[in-house]
Amino acid sequence: MNALPVRALTAQAFAPFGEVLACEGAAHYPINEGTTERFDDLARIDAGPQGRVIVSIFRGQPRRFPLPITMMERHPLGSQAFMPLQGTPYLVVVAEPGTPSAVPGPLHAFLARGDQGVNYGPGVWHHPLIAMDQVSDFLVIDRRGTGHNCDEAPLPQAYLLAYPGAPA
Amino acid sequence: MNALPVRALTAQAFAPFGEVLACEGAAHYPINEGTTERFDDLARIDAGPQGRVIVSIFRGQPRRFPLPITMMERHPLGSQAFMPLQGTPYLVVVAEPGTPSAVPGPLHAFLARGDQGVNYGPGVWHHPLIAMDQVSDFLVIDRRGTGHNCDEAPLPQAYLLAYPGAPA
Repeated sequence: MNALPVRALTAQAFAPFGEVLACEGAAHYPINEGTTERFDDLARIDAGPQGRVIVSIFRGQPRRFPLPITMMERHPLGSQAFMPLQGTPYLVVVAEPGTPSAVPGPLHAFLARGDQGVNYGPGVWHHPLIAMDQVSDFLVIDRRGTGHNCDEAPLPQAYLLAYPGAPA
Repeated sequence: MNALPVRALTAQAFAPFGEVLACEGAAHYPINEGTTERFDDLARIDAGPQGRVIVSIFRGQPRRFPLPITMMERHPLGSQAFMPLQGTPYLVVVAEPGTPSAVPGPLHAFLARGDQGVNYGPGVWHHPLIAMDQVSDFLVIDRRGTGHNCDEAPLPQAYLLAYPGAPA
């Protein structure tokens, strides 16, 4: 299987796929008489005209590495954001939305720090949650509503995702 | 000043004010081939007809205790959720919405664990963020849009909030 290179997650590199939820680079200002700093409006949350925004917690089991990447999924009707709740790093694999019938690709893999969340734009292909070292909780902000909002696609060719820093 | 007693935060005790964001007691089911457990739809996120849901990070400075509680605020047009990002406990002071012109009260204070978020319902009086021991980040899910969405009210009588466990 081909190895999938892993890059550090940055807002710029992730821009084709959505937003990084983090303080760095965000517009911010003091509130509450200076006792709190607000890093404001970090993501385009989108539940579409027929949906509502819901909040859930995803508890991810740590994966075994190297991890074969054999499928991707996407939510055409709404965004989906993940924010780590225990400061644990995790891995993100994405591909641009493409056409409705397109095969997901090319794939991009990112290592997210424990203080970085991600928000996948509507239709952005992504791999299900990849926790690394321990059971990890994430706050998830996504959509509930009518309509078909989950596509799953097998990959014609599997990729191998190494533990970051491990030899490929 | 009168002391404000602090209770442990539970979904039941907090129900008049909104929801507790936590795994315990939530409906949950496995996803992603059993690698993740989804604790589903934990709060009533409400941005109203003229608003959109936004996500921000609030970075709270630790307060000094005992803390005088001299004012409250409310957001009549939308909900506001706080989820701790570093597992740090914090304090919540709330009062029921009451009438538009009503004085906030009676006050209720809760100690939230670091794995518990809170979602204030529209119009629920609450004190600005009260971090306790260290600088603490919270993911905040609230509303952006037209209309007046923040009332602040001084309290006719201040209350004193002790550090939980400290003698009142």
